[in-house]
Amino acid sequence: MESPADQFDLIVLGGGTGGYTAAFRASQLGLRTALVEADLIGGTCLHRGCIPTKVMLESADLLARMRDASAFGLEAAGVGANMAAIARRRTDTVNRLTGGLMSLVRKNRVELIHGRGVLESSRVVRVALAGPDGLAEGERVIQATNLILATGSRPRSLPGLVPDGRRIVTSDDVLTSEVIPPSLIVVGGGAVGVEFASFYRDMGTEVTLVEYLSSLVPLEDAEIGRVLERAFRRRGIEVMVGARLDPEAAVADDAGVTVSVETVAGVGRRELHAAQLLVATGRSANVSGIGLENTQVVVESGVIRVDPYMRTAEPNVYAIGDLVGGLLLAHVAAHEGIVAVETIAGLDPEPVDYSIMPRATYCRPQIASVGRSEAELTRDSVPYVAGKFPWLANAKAVIGGDHEGFAKVLAHAETGQILGIHLIGPHVTDLVAEGSLGMNLAARVQELAHTVHPHPSLSEALAEAAMAVSGQSINV
Amino acid sequence: MESPADQFDLIVLGGGTGGYTAAFRASQLGLRTALVEADLIGGTCLHRGCIPTKVMLESADLLARMRDASAFGLEAAGVGANMAAIARRRTDTVNRLTGGLMSLVRKNRVELIHGRGVLESSRVVRVALAGPDGLAEGERVIQATNLILATGSRPRSLPGLVPDGRRIVTSDDVLTSEVIPPSLIVVGGGAVGVEFASFYRDMGTEVTLVEYLSSLVPLEDAEIGRVLERAFRRRGIEVMVGARLDPEAAVADDAGVTVSVETVAGVGRRELHAAQLLVATGRSANVSGIGLENTQVVVESGVIRVDPYMRTAEPNVYAIGDLVGGLLLAHVAAHEGIVAVETIAGLDPEPVDYSIMPRATYCRPQIASVGRSEAELTRDSVPYVAGKFPWLANAKAVIGGDHEGFAKVLAHAETGQILGIHLIGPHVTDLVAEGSLGMNLAARVQELAHTVHPHPSLSEALAEAAMAVSGQSINV
Repeated sequence: MESPADQFDLIVLGGGTGGYTAAFRASQLGLRTALVEADLIGGTCLHRGCIPTKVMLESADLLARMRDASAFGLEAAGVGANMAAIARRRTDTVNRLTGGLMSLVRKNRVELIHGRGVLESSRVVRVALAGPDGLAEGERVIQATNLILATGSRPRSLPGLVPDGRRIVTSDDVLTSEVIPPSLIVVGGGAVGVEFASFYRDMGTEVTLVEYLSSLVPLEDAEIGRVLERAFRRRGIEVMVGARLDPEAAVADDAGVTVSVETVAGVGRRELHAAQLLVATGRSANVSGIGLENTQVVVESGVIRVDPYMRTAEPNVYAIGDLVGGLLLAHVAAHEGIVAVETIAGLDPEPVDYSIMPRATYCRPQIASVGRSEAELTRDSVPYVAGKFPWLANAKAVIGGDHEGFAKVLAHAETGQILGIHLIGPHVTDLVAEGSLGMNLAARVQELAHTVHPHPSLSEALAEAAMAVSGQSINV
Repeated sequence: MESPADQFDLIVLGGGTGGYTAAFRASQLGLRTALVEADLIGGTCLHRGCIPTKVMLESADLLARMRDASAFGLEAAGVGANMAAIARRRTDTVNRLTGGLMSLVRKNRVELIHGRGVLESSRVVRVALAGPDGLAEGERVIQATNLILATGSRPRSLPGLVPDGRRIVTSDDVLTSEVIPPSLIVVGGGAVGVEFASFYRDMGTEVTLVEYLSSLVPLEDAEIGRVLERAFRRRGIEVMVGARLDPEAAVADDAGVTVSVETVAGVGRRELHAAQLLVATGRSANVSGIGLENTQVVVESGVIRVDPYMRTAEPNVYAIGDLVGGLLLAHVAAHEGIVAVETIAGLDPEPVDYSIMPRATYCRPQIASVGRSEAELTRDSVPYVAGKFPWLANAKAVIGGDHEGFAKVLAHAETGQILGIHLIGPHVTDLVAEGSLGMNLAARVQELAHTVHPHPSLSEALAEAAMAVSGQSINV
């Protein structure tokens, strides 16, 4: 431990998106950096989250377009999906991106230490090294001036509903599966739940989506949830909102899973049966087993308490990503990592502002948003005006044959400052970036309205929605 | 003429994108507005330009993806295109959008006058009315306090190369055609030429693309042209740059077209033969036959001279769109129309700033840009730094299987202000909008770099390119 080789400026515990981003930026800023990861670099996002699901959804989207090919003057016979081949592409893509990250580790001269790290103090980490075969292979004690904790999260089920990896599964399970269940109950209508519901429906599965709250994607603007619900119903997904599944009453056997669902309104119980049940009811931060008890770091409601520079209660220990709760999004973790590192390097970065973090969900239609919803603005007593523009009135969406949904811009009624952008429809997971930039620059809605957008493009919908705030849309 | 019914606050001459946008906004601002159009509302963009080409290119893009379906774990047999069906969809889409515009004319209470208008003075327009069958049906004289001229443009050939609509054709001709020529020479490697080259190649045509200047899309940053050339060559398009076609030597007969092409470097002449030759060598403004001689409006180099508020030399007469030259883009015309109307209404708008107008080309790979190129900045002696990010390093582009090209951000070396954004690759015709907003807000490159973009999304490439300006990309 006294060896200079074990002495770093920064140790990052956890090699997910937040962790490796922090480590790369730290090295760019001249910090000697160690990145400790027990598993493969890339974390949940690359191995059990964003990336593998997006590979699956990319195939599903293309499949849906191919089924509609004749509408575009194209011909094809025997259109279908081969789940084993999709799964192979999923593995290949993850491996390729993992390889890319490994070369970035080398390029950035980050020391990647393969093993499970436990804090012995606020500056010392004991790593149980993992050999090439993943088995324990001795240990190494390292120390640093600063630490960033980024150990991520894992799927959480409902109390009493225990995933068995076969009939009752989590996202971790289905992301290594090559099987399309004939029928599936998805419990949880948040981003993860609706993405899987969308995917499996395209693959031909009979999907029932059960959400406890009164609308799908309950963290989004309420109107988004309503449009998604309608779109999902039209696609043949059975949507149950305001519905409580009794976790204790679930029965899994060789024939599948049987559960009992009660509508909150109390209309009565219903028995549901399916080949599989996918639990998508949230995630728990990995705060245990990493030695927090040897530090002054404070855990509250299961997540680490931090300030907007990602500082914990322990001087020189920072925490980022799913570990600190909140949005649980890879790009938020990456941003938190950069803010933490720039704080450590004395660069005086802007604090993390969660009110301008974009959110993106890759179901069909896609959903994306940044800023506050109408309900949140009403709750906060902020006077606002909404401007809305339907994709049906956007020429490029009509040309693309994909024109369900709308773009909505919320602006302060007096100052015109943009307070929220809510999108459901084609390619909105990319289009929302313009909203993020605008909100980051504290743009007024008039500035968005007067920005010239290429014609015909989907991006025009944002300017039209901005114009609609003052009743001056051109194309609707 | 003395009838109040013939008295308007504003007459807009020409019902293309610029014209109808101006008319709608004028009505929203309370101006009694007449819109004079001899043909269908929508102009070149809707009937002979942007919209029908994008319908064709949408089918071509889907066809290309379908041919690659097995890479996504999908199955299909007999993948092909039916040009007659694509042409039907093209007509249906144009008709649908035309119907939409007609209902907006009614909603905005714009008086649409169907006929050919000629200025008798700076306030009086004589309209040769067209009946429902398109034939002349009397005339009507109207007058207004202000006039906006928006009569657009038409394809221009090379001197001596006369389109016959059969062997030697323009974009007007191919946009009503249902035929895929077995071979095609495209003369002109600008936006129009490369879009048609891209489309017909996907349809199986042997395409030769002849450009006089030394690179394709010569108005774009030079690096864009090089990547496009490579991509086109890989797709089997024969690209000849720095090549002069002798317009006088073109011979069209039943067998096709034979032309002689000389490389500017003087390596020698080559004879090219193809079933068709498409002339895509630019457009001429429609300045004739509209009565400009009865006004003080000044025509210079074939276009109307205007100031940045679109005012001509004749008080109260404005001109917009292709008629004033420059970029010849529908969204620029629309913006010019709004600035002209807001000037007329006394709203004191920002002047039109051509340095922040986005440009979008829908070939494959797509091209989009805003601001100045490296060559322009060098010419203008502006010290700049370039940041570049390849799509190959963007996870979503890898997932989409479409990762040719790059995103490039040019920033002022001292102030960090964003001076140009140049994109070639997937969906960039939408992604460029973020650059437009940034440049409209005079954003610094650090602000773009610090804006959080959803992961995984294509939009991340802009932030990464912005980070690259200071050598701090994360994912490359």
